[in-house]
Formats: sequence, C-alpha cells, structure tokens
Amino acid sequence: MSYASANLVIMGLGLIGGSLARSARASGFCQRITGYGYRAASLQRGIELGVIDDFTLDIEEAIDTADILVICTPTLTAADLLKDILPRLPRDGGGPVVTDVASVKGSLRDAAVKICGEMPQQFVLGHPIAGSEHSGVEASDASLFVDHRVILTPEDGNAPAAVALIRRLWESTGAEVVEMSVERHDAVLAATSHLPHALAYTLVDALSSLPDSDEVFRCAAGGFRDFTRIASSDPTMWRDIALANRSALLEAIDHFSQHLEQLRVAVERKDGDELFATFSRAKKARDAFAVVLAERTK
Amino acid sequence: MSYASANLVIMGLGLIGGSLARSARASGFCQRITGYGYRAASLQRGIELGVIDDFTLDIEEAIDTADILVICTPTLTAADLLKDILPRLPRDGGGPVVTDVASVKGSLRDAAVKICGEMPQQFVLGHPIAGSEHSGVEASDASLFVDHRVILTPEDGNAPAAVALIRRLWESTGAEVVEMSVERHDAVLAATSHLPHALAYTLVDALSSLPDSDEVFRCAAGGFRDFTRIASSDPTMWRDIALANRSALLEAIDHFSQHLEQLRVAVERKDGDELFATFSRAKKARDAFAVVLAERTK
Repeated sequence: MSYASANLVIMGLGLIGGSLARSARASGFCQRITGYGYRAASLQRGIELGVIDDFTLDIEEAIDTADILVICTPTLTAADLLKDILPRLPRDGGGPVVTDVASVKGSLRDAAVKICGEMPQQFVLGHPIAGSEHSGVEASDASLFVDHRVILTPEDGNAPAAVALIRRLWESTGAEVVEMSVERHDAVLAATSHLPHALAYTLVDALSSLPDSDEVFRCAAGGFRDFTRIASSDPTMWRDIALANRSALLEAIDHFSQHLEQLRVAVERKDGDELFATFSRAKKARDAFAVVLAERTK
Repeated sequence: MSYASANLVIMGLGLIGGSLARSARASGFCQRITGYGYRAASLQRGIELGVIDDFTLDIEEAIDTADILVICTPTLTAADLLKDILPRLPRDGGGPVVTDVASVKGSLRDAAVKICGEMPQQFVLGHPIAGSEHSGVEASDASLFVDHRVILTPEDGNAPAAVALIRRLWESTGAEVVEMSVERHDAVLAATSHLPHALAYTLVDALSSLPDSDEVFRCAAGGFRDFTRIASSDPTMWRDIALANRSALLEAIDHFSQHLEQLRVAVERKDGDELFATFSRAKKARDAFAVVLAERTK
C-alpha cells in the first residue's frame, strides 16, 4: 500500500504541531493543513497566523480529511486520543497514517496494542528531539527541526510504506531521522532528558526546603541558573512523562545514584585522584557533546 | 587602626583578579595596581592590556607595596600562598590588609589559624559570587561584579577596620556585600555551586559509561546542554574545591540523595500527586530565583 501526503491534520496546535505545520507548508510537502483540537479560539489563532488552513473540532472529520494525522498533544493526552482515533482506522491498513511526537514511546505502543489487539499497520511512533523555552503556536517556527533528530520507533506490525511516509514528512522539515526500538528510545530519553529533569527538580526542591532558602538562592550564580533552568518546566507534563516512562526512569535514577555514591565515597576518602579522573572523563564527554551541538546549529 | 587603599596588589591575574583590578582603577578606589605571580609573561600581558601598572615576582616586594593584597588564585594555591604571606605580616595588625576570592572559606581560615596560631587581624576572608564561561586576564571586565554578591566571612580575630576596608573595596566595584559565618558560607556554596557541579559531572560520567554513549549524547537536546554545561569546568579546580569543602559537600550530597530517594519512591509507586507537588514546589522556587537573577542583570 502507498500513501499520499496532500492533507496534513495536526492534533494539538502548540509549538511542535505549529512548527511542523509551518514547515510542511513551506516545503510543499503537504498542500492542505488542518488543525484539530478542543478549543476553537486557539485553532482560529492558528488560521490568523497562517499556520493552518482550516480546523475542525470533530474527530471523524479530522480522520476523514487526513492523509497524515500527527498527534502533537502531551504524552497522556495522546494516549487518550488514541482511543478515539485507532478504532476508526480501517483494519486493512488504509486511511490516514497516524504518528505522534510524545516523549515516551512504550506507553503509547502499549496503549495502541491494548486498543487494537495488535499494533495498527498505519500508526508509526515518532519523537522529534526539539523544543524551545517558549511554547504555544505563537512560538512556532518552520525551521525548528532543521538539523535536529527525529526518532522513529517502528514496530513489526507497521506497514513499511507508512513508516517511509512519516520518515519523508520529517526529512522534509530538515531533520535527521533515525530509527531505534521503543525500548532503546525510552532508555536513551530517560538518560538524557527525563533523568536531568528529575535531578533539577529534586535539587531545587531540596534547596527550597533549607532554612533561609531565599538567602541560599540569592547566593547562587550563573552555573546554578543553567543547571536548574529545566526545573521551570511544566509540572503536569513532567509528572506525566515520569509516570509514562516509569521503569526506564527508575533504571536511570539507579544508575545515576550508583555513580553519585562512588563520587561521595571519593570525597569522603579525600581521593583526589578519583575525583580528578571522574571530572576529567565527564569534561571530555561534555566537550565532545558541545562539538556535536555546535555542528547541529551551524 | 585605619588602612589606606592607595596601592592594590593582585596575586594571580586571571578573570577575577583582572576584573577587580580594572574596576578598582575605573572607580578610582586604588591609585596603583601591581600584579604578583610566578610567570612574567602573563603579568606583562596585564600591563599591555592596561589592567595593572606594574608587576613583581618577589613576594616580599608585593607585600611591602600593598595597602590591600588580594589573593586571586584557586583554592589550594591560595592556602599555599598564605604560608608565604601571613608570617610576613606585623603581629600588631599593621601592614597591608589581605583578602582572597576562593570558593571555600573554612579551609583557608583553618590554614591561617594553623600558620599564625590565631586568625590574623588583617586577613579578611571573602568570596565574590561572579564568574564567566571565559577565563584569564583577557576576559577581565570592570563591570563583572556589578549587582553581584560578594560574601565576606569575618572572624572574631579580624580588625573591624580591616573588614570595613575590604567591604569598601568590593562596594566600589558595584557589588552587594553581605557577611555571614564561614560555616554558613561553605554550606550555602556547597548547596548552590559545589553540589550542582558534582551532579553535572556525575551525570555526564554516568552517561558516558553507557553502551553506545556517543549515540546517547547525540539524542540529547537543549535541556541537557544547559544542565551539563558546568561539567565542562576545570577538573583540577573542582577537585580542589571538593576536597577543601569536603564536609559541607558530603552533607549537601546526602541531603540531595534523600530527596532523590523520595522522588524515586514516588515514581515507583506511580504517585502522580507527589510528583506533581514536588515538581510544582521546585518550579515555583526556580521561577522566583529567575526573578532575582533578572533584577541582578538589569
């Protein structure tokens, strides 16, 4: 089966959905772009901004309209939406190809299998590794994904043509598309994103529990500002991610805690060589990462 | 006893020392600024840049020249320098007033008391909470300390006039000068600076020990970049700080680890309410800190 890509439906018109819409229009990958959501006001704003052509509040109409349907809502909302979408897809793999942008893939895969009894041929799990301090369709940007990674986690049940279409969609935005297993994705994201958020939240919360915590924060400097910036992230979104990626996050916390305990022992034993070795390995890895990042933003 | 401030000697002409020299000249607080160090080349560069007027490699001459002598070397080097400086100060509190800029105060206080048998009247411990990604005298900036905090940790043995002089020196740079005990300083800095560095180093080192760690880092995004920026800091400097502030750092690690364990339990129990409460408290504290920071940089 092959799939056309004339009509794109974006469910949840925020930063990611809006940016994908802008990019798909700019590249000509999609001719018509429709928004779907619960609130007409924000979708109307999307039309005014030129991000979408039209919108619907009716999920049947959204599915009928779409060649590609992208769920751009937060993780737990996406799982809820699947209950409305997946049973309406033809069992033969026809209809629109559905994908998502959520930060956790295992929970959505499991939800889909639970709903359909097997992974639907035309539901392809995806995750663009991109974002911004800003949120909402007002902040959307056609170049948000350029040189960023998009991870697809195709399942055995997926139609190869459906996976290929979602790959072409993301490649059209200028992203680098890679594929990995659901389990690998969730472990990697736990390590590089979900754990750091948990650590930043924990540090700020621990400090705010100290006596005279206002005074403590007033003595903090630029390093602390950068380290804790992600602790200003949306608590609802991160609660949902922590719950959705529970087992991989627990493994990441445990792995980190073992290393922190090793560092603690080195400090306690005044083991300067061990501290220097640890800090040097970390600096080398972080400096190498900075080179990768610099190439990405060239 | 009162102290004059005509002649400033900077020991260790890097970012902090160079910025203090530039500021003291710009404000007119000091008329003559002399550099002291081990290497003529970098001191010569300081003259070329207009940061210092002259320099000496002779510690006797540096002490004889100074009304105020500021030790701007890293923590452990500062402790070594005290052995050369403090025995040369008059026991009656005369001669120059000596201060420092190190990140840990207890270790220097203890070193001074060990050398002199008591805290010298004219040695005032200090710590400007300021820095930059850049280092070295080339990056020095007369406005580095404007609206930043400088913490003085005066001891009972200090001459009040000596403390007042160091306070005026830092106030002349535009800094906000606060006083606290050595113990409080070291606990606050452990929490806001030394612990975050330890956590960032630990996270990056833990991730670099994973299989396919290059691939893991390649999936990291902006939040990870900010969170781990301080893991690119100088390993020698941070080894020394960790050793110098050992007991306060151990307490900070333990306090953090207790909070991380609470978070782990909440994730394991799928306790969404507890996760939301923790993340919300942290976000509120971090957002309030951002307001403080924004006022500082206005």
